Amino acid sequence: MAKRIGVILSGCGVYDGSEIHEAVITLLAIDRAGAEAVCMAPDIPQMHVINHLIGEPAEGESRNVLVESARIARGNIKDLATVQVADIDALILPGGFGAAKNLCDFAVSGPDCAVNSEVARLIKEMYAAKKPIAAVCIAPAVLSKVLGSENVSHQLTIGSDEETAAALNKMGTEHIQCPVREFVVDQENKLVSSPAYMLAGSISEAAEGIEKTVQALIGMIE
Amino acid sequence: MAKRIGVILSGCGVYDGSEIHEAVITLLAIDRAGAEAVCMAPDIPQMHVINHLIGEPAEGESRNVLVESARIARGNIKDLATVQVADIDALILPGGFGAAKNLCDFAVSGPDCAVNSEVARLIKEMYAAKKPIAAVCIAPAVLSKVLGSENVSHQLTIGSDEETAAALNKMGTEHIQCPVREFVVDQENKLVSSPAYMLAGSISEAAEGIEKTVQALIGMIE
Repeated sequence: MAKRIGVILSGCGVYDGSEIHEAVITLLAIDRAGAEAVCMAPDIPQMHVINHLIGEPAEGESRNVLVESARIARGNIKDLATVQVADIDALILPGGFGAAKNLCDFAVSGPDCAVNSEVARLIKEMYAAKKPIAAVCIAPAVLSKVLGSENVSHQLTIGSDEETAAALNKMGTEHIQCPVREFVVDQENKLVSSPAYMLAGSISEAAEGIEKTVQALIGMIE
Repeated sequence: MAKRIGVILSGCGVYDGSEIHEAVITLLAIDRAGAEAVCMAPDIPQMHVINHLIGEPAEGESRNVLVESARIARGNIKDLATVQVADIDALILPGGFGAAKNLCDFAVSGPDCAVNSEVARLIKEMYAAKKPIAAVCIAPAVLSKVLGSENVSHQLTIGSDEETAAALNKMGTEHIQCPVREFVVDQENKLVSSPAYMLAGSISEAAEGIEKTVQALIGMIE
């Protein structure tokens, strides 16, 4: 049976949802590895809607994270609240501001952020079951908060941004600097992370780190 | 100087805009070939908005093709009406229903469809300048209508769907059947096309045809 990789989406668009390039490159890497992507997202309103043409909030508009994430998944997506740890062999969180606005509120509250309860539940269950978890771009902030709150000593990267790295350290992560085309493995905790568009100047740069991350993640499945 | 590949987007989501996987795979293939993507979309309302979770129209919602396309382009996108033939060396149209609902109305009117005037203008100018053009998935319908209306004998594929192929033939195309992982080249007219999600059962299948299409397109630039 193909290995099942849960993919947590957070909307559809870098400024208010999942970073679309990162999400699609993740799905392609999973499929090319012969594994199966299980897309999921929380059924909650987005923090806000950003007009991506001008980079400013679209006042008065509201969108749902699960409904918008379904665009990336071509409709083949589950409500994250219905996904159990037994349903998947590994988990990956692509980046985009949605990870820091919808999955948690790190974009607003920094290290004092709160994580969506169902997202936190699934991450904790995966960790307890010793199933591997990956996060890309800003999404390691979600893992940092969840694992840090459980007092798990662990390593992650968000690239090299000092302020963001300091926030992760404050939440309980040992932040590891990492070049854009590479990734960081915390073997003991079965965590993989890569900076992607935290550092990438091109889609190819982001892709290389994500492809390596997905390969490492799948390689950790027992 | 890097070769500049125009990418016509038509929104953000397979059912009412650009097919997101096809668009991102196109951008990645262009970047990996050392070329530069020049994303563009018409500044017009979408035909409608589809809720991609349930696959049905979202009544009362309206979105703009350029604004939604900007999600795929991370904000780096031009109003198609401002793009001149001198700005790009080649042109590609990813698929998704947006190509058949927003760039033209093929999804509603079939072979009697009308093409957005600025989209038609740029395609005609590219053809007249002997610059290569590619189209993926359902987007060859746009080229078929524009070139057929100019009485250009040409070849394209939309895969193997008989009804859609017959509609292309009626608009003036010689339709060529093509397996999902391959592509069709009309050398004389510098056209490349590939079925992608008209036939693909997986993102990898779509990717292989698109990667070959982008390589062939760039190889045709003089």
